[in-house]
Amino acid sequence: MKVDNDWEKLIADLYKGSERAMSRLISKVENRENGWLETMQEIHKKTGSARIIGITGSPGTGKSTLTGKLARSFVELQKKVGIIAVDPSSPFSGGALLGDRLRMNEINCMPGVFVRSMATRGALGGLSQSARDVVKIMDAFGKDIIIIETVGVGQDEIDIVKTADVVLVVCVPGMGDGIQAIKAGIMEIADIFVVNKADLKGADQVVADIKSMLEMTNDGATVPINMVVSTTGEGIKELTDIVSQSLMNDQKKAAWKQEQVQEEIMILLEKEVAFYLRSIWNDETRLSSVLKQVIAREQDPYTVVKEIMVPLIKACEDHR
Amino acid sequence: MKVDNDWEKLIADLYKGSERAMSRLISKVENRENGWLETMQEIHKKTGSARIIGITGSPGTGKSTLTGKLARSFVELQKKVGIIAVDPSSPFSGGALLGDRLRMNEINCMPGVFVRSMATRGALGGLSQSARDVVKIMDAFGKDIIIIETVGVGQDEIDIVKTADVVLVVCVPGMGDGIQAIKAGIMEIADIFVVNKADLKGADQVVADIKSMLEMTNDGATVPINMVVSTTGEGIKELTDIVSQSLMNDQKKAAWKQEQVQEEIMILLEKEVAFYLRSIWNDETRLSSVLKQVIAREQDPYTVVKEIMVPLIKACEDHR
Repeated sequence: MKVDNDWEKLIADLYKGSERAMSRLISKVENRENGWLETMQEIHKKTGSARIIGITGSPGTGKSTLTGKLARSFVELQKKVGIIAVDPSSPFSGGALLGDRLRMNEINCMPGVFVRSMATRGALGGLSQSARDVVKIMDAFGKDIIIIETVGVGQDEIDIVKTADVVLVVCVPGMGDGIQAIKAGIMEIADIFVVNKADLKGADQVVADIKSMLEMTNDGATVPINMVVSTTGEGIKELTDIVSQSLMNDQKKAAWKQEQVQEEIMILLEKEVAFYLRSIWNDETRLSSVLKQVIAREQDPYTVVKEIMVPLIKACEDHR
Repeated sequence: MKVDNDWEKLIADLYKGSERAMSRLISKVENRENGWLETMQEIHKKTGSARIIGITGSPGTGKSTLTGKLARSFVELQKKVGIIAVDPSSPFSGGALLGDRLRMNEINCMPGVFVRSMATRGALGGLSQSARDVVKIMDAFGKDIIIIETVGVGQDEIDIVKTADVVLVVCVPGMGDGIQAIKAGIMEIADIFVVNKADLKGADQVVADIKSMLEMTNDGATVPINMVVSTTGEGIKELTDIVSQSLMNDQKKAAWKQEQVQEEIMILLEKEVAFYLRSIWNDETRLSSVLKQVIAREQDPYTVVKEIMVPLIKACEDHR
């Protein structure tokens, strides 16, 4: 299928460096507008030069401020920076977000920095695929560094941050993060620990906690632990150096890259199949009688699904 | 396929009223052990008598205490009660949960009450399908009332609570819940509002906020607002009456039921197709060369997915 004119124009403008084109492309792809898939096929070719930094941590650990400071550091190193802020879906507790968004606006005004906020609810292609799409569009635009900031709560958010080349897990004193982190298996995704608000009492204890956990769980691999005070900028230069080194070393292995691509293909496939199945079933007149049967307990959803799958499985087997 | 002996025995014991069999069945179905689908086909026939109450709200609104008190009220009305507590995945902030779990243990000791806790991460069939399966097993066991308690954060949790016959949205004074609720579209899923901790300052304001929001958004439909103090039990009797009436009126329409069943079939279908596709792709030698091509940008994930889908789409079209 040909990419239509509107898409073609946007892609051309994207490559010319238009932030407006980038914004529109992201929105159109997020909304799965007709032609999105062909557009991403095209854009994929231009990707692979940006390096991705994932930043995650509990609410209140100062991730946004840290993200802003890191972005500024990379701008000073003549890097073009993209930021993807994945907001918590939090239908109730959205209060603190307003402040975050205001801070994000300040960051957005830094030259060479482009910020995109993503809702965590209702992403048509699923949250982690949508984030991958946005990363690719920013990459194709010419961003050198893309920072993905997510709240470290929820499987989706963790899946997103795992796609980064380097993952920073942010802890702060007085929240018992260390202990919780190990419980949830966040430990293993950290390439670098950041102890933020290191001017607060208890920061040394957090470092000690992380160290002892690493000793217990990490097969002796060393994970750097950096103390910073994001608000004042203390420790940010050192952190930027370590992150840069980590990105240059390309420490993540070929096996990890393959795994990431495989996961991307699987997620994309699942979503596309789901989307297709919904589209055909939603206008099947057969469906309505099946639903009535299930409600009357003459039929059950499990049998219905098994029957739908018979031809699908046969098709796959014939195709192998 | 025949349900094997182990499953058959468990189903027979479930119908005889064995809580141990119910626990084991839930675990085996959650883990998608071989035979789970046939078991659920069998169990589905015995479902449809239990009534489902969904309770949702922000962390800290006292949902667990409210759930416990409501459970006790229904036990006093000679009802057999099942509780499904969907814990937040929260990899970092798990601290408060310990207290919740202790409270849950107290509730679990009430006669006629069975509590099941569900992790929000890693449910093989997806969180909302797993919750549906657990509801059905409890229903087939003979529970009259099943209370699903979820934190009202995250699309999955909201999807779960929407499957209930009556949905209680819990607010408390001083958290700005009212305003947030409307933003997130939680408003429309509430059949009953509960203002908990109504002895605190600001409770009347919460009621007023909810009322004014209802006026703005709800086409004039009346949604009851109940003030309670879960810890002392104040207002629980009145709330129980209103919930009972709501359940007896069977206020949710036939269209809603059809929509729920359709959604269940779609989710089940998507998960089963995804599961199947993953199983065949994970041992394809072809996959490894495709991954290498994608990493080298000679190929892209979007094209790969389109190609995989060709025979699937053909199969669906032939089958219609």
